[in-house]
Amino acid sequence: MEKISDFTVRRLSSYYRILSDLEQKKVLTISSAKLAEFGGITSAQVRKDLSYFGNFGTRGLGYNVSELKNEITRILGLNQTWGMALFGAGSLGNALFFHQGFRDDGFFFRYLFDVDLGKIGTKWGNLEILAVDKAKEVLKRDPVDIGVITTPKEAAQDIVDLAVEVGIKGILNFAPRELVVPEGVSLRNVNLAVALESLSFSLSI
Amino acid sequence: MEKISDFTVRRLSSYYRILSDLEQKKVLTISSAKLAEFGGITSAQVRKDLSYFGNFGTRGLGYNVSELKNEITRILGLNQTWGMALFGAGSLGNALFFHQGFRDDGFFFRYLFDVDLGKIGTKWGNLEILAVDKAKEVLKRDPVDIGVITTPKEAAQDIVDLAVEVGIKGILNFAPRELVVPEGVSLRNVNLAVALESLSFSLSI
Repeated sequence: MEKISDFTVRRLSSYYRILSDLEQKKVLTISSAKLAEFGGITSAQVRKDLSYFGNFGTRGLGYNVSELKNEITRILGLNQTWGMALFGAGSLGNALFFHQGFRDDGFFFRYLFDVDLGKIGTKWGNLEILAVDKAKEVLKRDPVDIGVITTPKEAAQDIVDLAVEVGIKGILNFAPRELVVPEGVSLRNVNLAVALESLSFSLSI
Repeated sequence: MEKISDFTVRRLSSYYRILSDLEQKKVLTISSAKLAEFGGITSAQVRKDLSYFGNFGTRGLGYNVSELKNEITRILGLNQTWGMALFGAGSLGNALFFHQGFRDDGFFFRYLFDVDLGKIGTKWGNLEILAVDKAKEVLKRDPVDIGVITTPKEAAQDIVDLAVEVGIKGILNFAPRELVVPEGVSLRNVNLAVALESLSFSLSI
């Protein structure tokens, strides 16, 4: 399982979304060709991706939509809930906090931290923004799975070191800088400019 | 040029960032092996990606950092500025509006639209939020290059149709639904949950 590439996982996310849609529309089965068409990839790729995880299809009938969706839900770890701490209660953090899609997937912000005295003590929804100085104490007592980093880039590595120290195993980084994490901690970087650069590339040719 | 895959463009974005960093650190040349190492890919992949666009390297010396950065800047269309209209002045739109990285890359929001009477007429920075009813008139008179969609998913297709009608050629969609655009219009979808799902996958195995 360790060898699955991030690109494969991204495709699994895509299948998950397609299958969720189909399930809502009461579609019962789907062929790898059709799944490939929805995902914009080849059916050989679909079969290869799914073959990593076992044998889901029935020759000639395709995949059972609900079964395959449940299996991918399990593979992606979406059959459980994940607790998150947000570091950096700025406008991006706010947007992520209120993003319904995270909650639908089982990702919940349980702590909000900032350094700004004007923000500390105020609330987003029912959750109070805490001083980052308290983070170590709070998160050692009540651990979370994932740290979401929306601090300025200068602060990001210190925050990640803190997150690692309290035992957080997954980091989602929105700060535009390369971060270092020890082995055993997973890091994903999201750069919002990349999709725009892909557009400007298209518009330039 | 049309055949360049989105994955290649993503790697170009990654090279662009690495080279910008190196240039700031006054590094003059870099080998494809080193560039590959920074990007987490093979040096054969680096050479292949760059070969699409001409011949940048000198055997034994590697690439000139500034020359290669300037060339990739040009390829990605980042040697010019891009005007954008935001549709949906919610918390995610707000975060994107204030995202410094977009401005650094030459992407500027020039119009903000919403349907909420409580928001229309208020300002973000110096820019007033306008009624979406005015968008057609405003954008026909003063066109923008890119439409950024942060509306609820139910409204997204209508907004895209409007954007296409006024001549917008690039759509960046954050609404969690599949959108249809005619040929000649580029669409990129950003799903914020995908990176989290990749993390929960890692944390589950």
